[in-house]
Amino acid sequence: MKHNPIGVFDSGIGGLTVVKAVKKMLPREDIIYLGDTARLPYGTKSVDAIIQFSIEDTQFLVDRGAKYIVIACYSSASVALDVIRKEFSVPVIGVIQPGVRKAMEVARTGKIGVIGTSLTIYSGAYEKAFKELGARAEILGRACPLFVPLVEEGWVDHAVSRMVAQDYLEPLKKDGIDTLLLGCTHYPLLMKVIRDILGDINYVDASTEVGVELAQNLRRLGLQNPDGMGSTSIYLTDLSMNFKEIGERFLGEPMKNFSRVSLKRYDEKSSHGGKEAK
Amino acid sequence: MKHNPIGVFDSGIGGLTVVKAVKKMLPREDIIYLGDTARLPYGTKSVDAIIQFSIEDTQFLVDRGAKYIVIACYSSASVALDVIRKEFSVPVIGVIQPGVRKAMEVARTGKIGVIGTSLTIYSGAYEKAFKELGARAEILGRACPLFVPLVEEGWVDHAVSRMVAQDYLEPLKKDGIDTLLLGCTHYPLLMKVIRDILGDINYVDASTEVGVELAQNLRRLGLQNPDGMGSTSIYLTDLSMNFKEIGERFLGEPMKNFSRVSLKRYDEKSSHGGKEAK
Repeated sequence: MKHNPIGVFDSGIGGLTVVKAVKKMLPREDIIYLGDTARLPYGTKSVDAIIQFSIEDTQFLVDRGAKYIVIACYSSASVALDVIRKEFSVPVIGVIQPGVRKAMEVARTGKIGVIGTSLTIYSGAYEKAFKELGARAEILGRACPLFVPLVEEGWVDHAVSRMVAQDYLEPLKKDGIDTLLLGCTHYPLLMKVIRDILGDINYVDASTEVGVELAQNLRRLGLQNPDGMGSTSIYLTDLSMNFKEIGERFLGEPMKNFSRVSLKRYDEKSSHGGKEAK
Repeated sequence: MKHNPIGVFDSGIGGLTVVKAVKKMLPREDIIYLGDTARLPYGTKSVDAIIQFSIEDTQFLVDRGAKYIVIACYSSASVALDVIRKEFSVPVIGVIQPGVRKAMEVARTGKIGVIGTSLTIYSGAYEKAFKELGARAEILGRACPLFVPLVEEGWVDHAVSRMVAQDYLEPLKKDGIDTLLLGCTHYPLLMKVIRDILGDINYVDASTEVGVELAQNLRRLGLQNPDGMGSTSIYLTDLSMNFKEIGERFLGEPMKNFSRVSLKRYDEKSSHGGKEAK
């Protein structure tokens, strides 16, 4: 099992930032990545739809022998983590908890800001995670639905992005947060604009933390690959315009090994080879 | 057959503007509407994906007895109209040609602007349609990918929307267009902002034209319903947050009759009951 790959999924290609962080911490591990580009974004869909999509994504990775599942999509991690853990026997890590742990570690005062898609923020997943980890800080969530389209338009340092960020972040600034958790794969690309508004506070990008925590977990479970090739296989449900250009921006290196795939549909009546198959 | 409903599909709920226009022209016709909200938007997906989705959408409507198919999604109409016509025997109308006809009718000088999603603009569907209809006008296309997210954020008269519109539309203004074709279901909601920049030129929203042309075609084919109830049944592949509120903004009346459905997957190897079934 230790020679098997780590499986990472996201609604699109933004999750390649998580792959980049994992590869940095675990250069010998082989990684299979699934981006559900045919149905992206997840953040505007219903909770039921995201849970169904997330089960299908996980099943795809499990079918390819994934020894560990990383949910790199914040919307999925917000609403589907518990279901995935219940339905599959493979260990699973989401992007929510590692970021929350780091935020609790670095926050000095009692106010932590969290930004994400509407779904991520309104799901209450962050409040729940902070509470479960015993945080006493006040958590201030703010949905920033235009940040993803702005990044995808390439306007990462544009007057419009500054104006949108001003609108979204001003309330967090007034509230005096000292730490901001970036709860979406695309937001790190807007760091310059965000920092211009919120100034010199702590910024937490969960990608790095996921890498650190995953490395610890693999060691603890004896699942570290002693002699892997560090390969990355990228599967996408649609090869849309510019996917390679945008993907390489997230991955930080050329995308060499990718293909288009169809996912098996999850049907509540059918077995999906999770717990049972093991 | 004349008692059968008209089938309308879109990637989401924006196509309800077309339903509204069709109901105005044809108050007795029953309408079944399919919004593929689980996979929206189409405009950022590949041509292959949009063709596959459009076949699945059409099949759903044909299975429910649709006597005429209206493609209310500009991205679908741009790249999938010919395939749908080839694969199904039911008559089909898209949103591209009716708008083009109207633009040719009202344009005074030789310059017509067209705005749409990146896919719609880069597909060249508008240039092709203008050419096929014998237009001599110069067609100036401009992709406006942030307009849809701005409308969905509800920022229809916001400083940010004005700044984005300025960025997108300034080149069309400089070029001196006298007619602007709105090539996306969401754009009519931004009319105030657009008019503030481009001033008193001709604006063409294809929804109305689709209604007019559909009425003519039904009459010509003897497919008009003499005693329909004017009912509207709305099927969505996902019931996402706020869908009802946003849908009613497009439809212009309360959404009473809606349900969530799953689509049969189109597989090139399988029969999909189109020409063969008739």
